[in-house]
Amino acid sequence: MPLKRFDRPIILGMVGDSASGKTTLATGVARILGEDRVATICTDDYHRYARQERAKNGLSALDPRSNYMDIMEQHLALLNQGKPILKPVYSHEAGTLVAPEYVAPKPYIIVEGLLGYTTRAMRDCYDVKIYVEPDEDLRVDWKIQRDTARRGYTREQVLASLEKRKADSPAYIHPQRVFADIVIQFKRPDGQSQERGRHLDVRHILRPTLPHPNLAPLVDAGAKNELSLDLARDHDGKPVDVLGISGAITDQRAAALENLLWDLIPEASHLRANVGEFTDAENQQVVSHPLALTQLLIAYHMVKAALGIHAI
Amino acid sequence: MPLKRFDRPIILGMVGDSASGKTTLATGVARILGEDRVATICTDDYHRYARQERAKNGLSALDPRSNYMDIMEQHLALLNQGKPILKPVYSHEAGTLVAPEYVAPKPYIIVEGLLGYTTRAMRDCYDVKIYVEPDEDLRVDWKIQRDTARRGYTREQVLASLEKRKADSPAYIHPQRVFADIVIQFKRPDGQSQERGRHLDVRHILRPTLPHPNLAPLVDAGAKNELSLDLARDHDGKPVDVLGISGAITDQRAAALENLLWDLIPEASHLRANVGEFTDAENQQVVSHPLALTQLLIAYHMVKAALGIHAI
Repeated sequence: MPLKRFDRPIILGMVGDSASGKTTLATGVARILGEDRVATICTDDYHRYARQERAKNGLSALDPRSNYMDIMEQHLALLNQGKPILKPVYSHEAGTLVAPEYVAPKPYIIVEGLLGYTTRAMRDCYDVKIYVEPDEDLRVDWKIQRDTARRGYTREQVLASLEKRKADSPAYIHPQRVFADIVIQFKRPDGQSQERGRHLDVRHILRPTLPHPNLAPLVDAGAKNELSLDLARDHDGKPVDVLGISGAITDQRAAALENLLWDLIPEASHLRANVGEFTDAENQQVVSHPLALTQLLIAYHMVKAALGIHAI
Repeated sequence: MPLKRFDRPIILGMVGDSASGKTTLATGVARILGEDRVATICTDDYHRYARQERAKNGLSALDPRSNYMDIMEQHLALLNQGKPILKPVYSHEAGTLVAPEYVAPKPYIIVEGLLGYTTRAMRDCYDVKIYVEPDEDLRVDWKIQRDTARRGYTREQVLASLEKRKADSPAYIHPQRVFADIVIQFKRPDGQSQERGRHLDVRHILRPTLPHPNLAPLVDAGAKNELSLDLARDHDGKPVDVLGISGAITDQRAAALENLLWDLIPEASHLRANVGEFTDAENQQVVSHPLALTQLLIAYHMVKAALGIHAI
């Protein structure tokens, strides 16, 4: 069933540090929403300076002053209005901006990147704001895995790059966490210091800035050690719900939970798709239940936001 | 005296065929208005396809389908609102789009190019719309001169390129003429088939779409064969004023006319600058009185438009 019409796209923000799982999450959400109805853009393309210029002026690539923040704002606002943009493209190979890319409006837009929530004007453009925050040792492992396997770096180069950018994360990335509706924390189960994939646990910190679904039936359907929902204080002291999904959840139970989640958005049942896939250390596509359920919960919010505006 | 504040820029359009003198006119107008207060952009940078792609898909670079017309519209509207843009840049050397260029809003913006008046939304963004239309044999000479001296082509290559684009001008360029406030026609004086510079005559076809200055004192001050103002029918049958300035005008008379023109905009007397320079066939900077007076008349309209909005 095609989308009949839309006045403006529903925009998902996916912000977090380098290699924190933004693309993996976004890919699954796009698959659920229908890849032909989703445009994904990356705010890391808005670099003001080429790598060589940054080496000269001493600015980090993560520094907002190194980026066309006003153009990023403008483009988010245009996308929000359903307008096309000519998005800059930064080539990581060349270290320079190259030919820009035309992005046509789609019913759903996913905006991922490091600095997407920096200004108020940017934040106002999103319908759903996610911040991804895996355990730091896990993120480091993910970064080494990705950058050595797919970006041609050595392990030592990745570690040196992490060391060099050490001050940037608290300065520019972490302050955006407070603006997210949901903070997603992948973490290793206790005592499993090597796990980095399908058996990771996940915690969702749910802020009351979005109408979260009633998760009680979900939690009741899960075994106690597989699924939990707890009232807690976030580390800034603010009240939040914390949804926990264990990496040890059985296939059967996970499927039942997926069904329950789909039941919450009956208007979107035609969107059902296999979710939760990611690329593991052996470069294989495998499925993680906590990842799948996370993607589904995010898609739930996107679909609900769309229902407020247009038919699905 | 710096510009105190401005709500939105005043935008000048300069449209016409290849090598019709757009840049020469624009450069002089920018000098009059103050180069630091003018941003000049070229709509020929909005190519959708690289040269190689065009060779494959058979579309001419002048075909609107070969250009990001919607982005051109969007950027004109943003500039009109005083917003910055990240403008695409087409490299004529490489035949591809390269890193885009950040254009900050300025009090005056000159938009030159081949297709700037194509859509209604674009045309609505200009305060003053010029169409340049030199005699065709003069334009061919200018094109050969420019492209062999400054773009590294041979005379044969330029003639071949003109032949190849022969159908494009009537299809895409000429239809925009009707939307101009002023059509500028440089032409050779009778019997001077080699003249291509300082002694060219110029005719301004003045449409009643702009409040043209009272040119009577100007015409009275000129000798009959140096300056003329005649009611006429444009070639579409519509009534127009035709201002004629002879390339044979004396330095003294031209200076007197310039003074008269400046007197029409006393608010802008601090903007006075040497105008009318162009690059001749020997690559020298020389001055043409008809060119200078043309630039001054265009600047007059820009200043008057600015006075309607902001202090100069």
